[in-house]
Amino acid sequence: MVREQELRPGEEATTPPAASDAGLVFIGRIHTPWTTRLETPRQGRQDGPICRLEIFPPWHRALAGLEAYDTVEIIYWLHLSRRDLILQSPKRDGAARGTFSLRSPVRPNPIGTSMARLVGIQDNIVAVRGLDCLDGTPLLDLKPDRCRFSPGDA
Amino acid sequence: MVREQELRPGEEATTPPAASDAGLVFIGRIHTPWTTRLETPRQGRQDGPICRLEIFPPWHRALAGLEAYDTVEIIYWLHLSRRDLILQSPKRDGAARGTFSLRSPVRPNPIGTSMARLVGIQDNIVAVRGLDCLDGTPLLDLKPDRCRFSPGDA
Repeated sequence: MVREQELRPGEEATTPPAASDAGLVFIGRIHTPWTTRLETPRQGRQDGPICRLEIFPPWHRALAGLEAYDTVEIIYWLHLSRRDLILQSPKRDGAARGTFSLRSPVRPNPIGTSMARLVGIQDNIVAVRGLDCLDGTPLLDLKPDRCRFSPGDA
Repeated sequence: MVREQELRPGEEATTPPAASDAGLVFIGRIHTPWTTRLETPRQGRQDGPICRLEIFPPWHRALAGLEAYDTVEIIYWLHLSRRDLILQSPKRDGAARGTFSLRSPVRPNPIGTSMARLVGIQDNIVAVRGLDCLDGTPLLDLKPDRCRFSPGDA
């Protein structure tokens, strides 16, 4: 969604509380083919282009064992998104819906989640398909797909 | 996972960077039947007990439209988790795996995600089944299940 500071008909913004209840550390950076919001897909596709997750120190070794999974949950920070909209009009048609009924990047905590196919891991680089975010997006977390995960394992 | 400050054989901790790259706002609080980590399930079940998400102002109205979905992605903050482990030994058997190959709550950014069944919404309370977190867990976000979501919608 291309979204600057304008409000569309039907939309409603609030003055959000300070975002100081907890703090995040960026554990890496996501490299994708998309450098503008206009060209970025709205939803990733499992046959989409390869994207690379660069893992920062000291977290490289925390990848050990991830290679056993073919689907990985990727959690990232939508760093360009505004955070103050309560109602949004995705189709710009005057019909507005609540922020929590949309997967729009515009939300109080702009956290994106995707299920991606693991292509390979080399050193501190994880290659995946299925992402939908801008080049340079900060990375927050990686986890094995919950569907493939045996509760006995952790 | 019951986890205090001890290190098990094979585990490795780091001194993590300051968690100041971005800030979170708690949009609500999760009410569950589980008040200690020992009794909290490791993975939620779709036939598990009803849990209630209390949405704080000013975000109540951002729920509008969510009632149309039967599965909701819940994103929450695992506020009691340590954040410094690179290698973890879930089975306490000396075999350690990387943090990113586990769904353990112990991670650099302790963000939990669950797919929950929507039971109902009344005012600022969302009732769901399928969670696996402690009573009082801070809520970060709600989104429609990506599988049920039509890319044309947002």
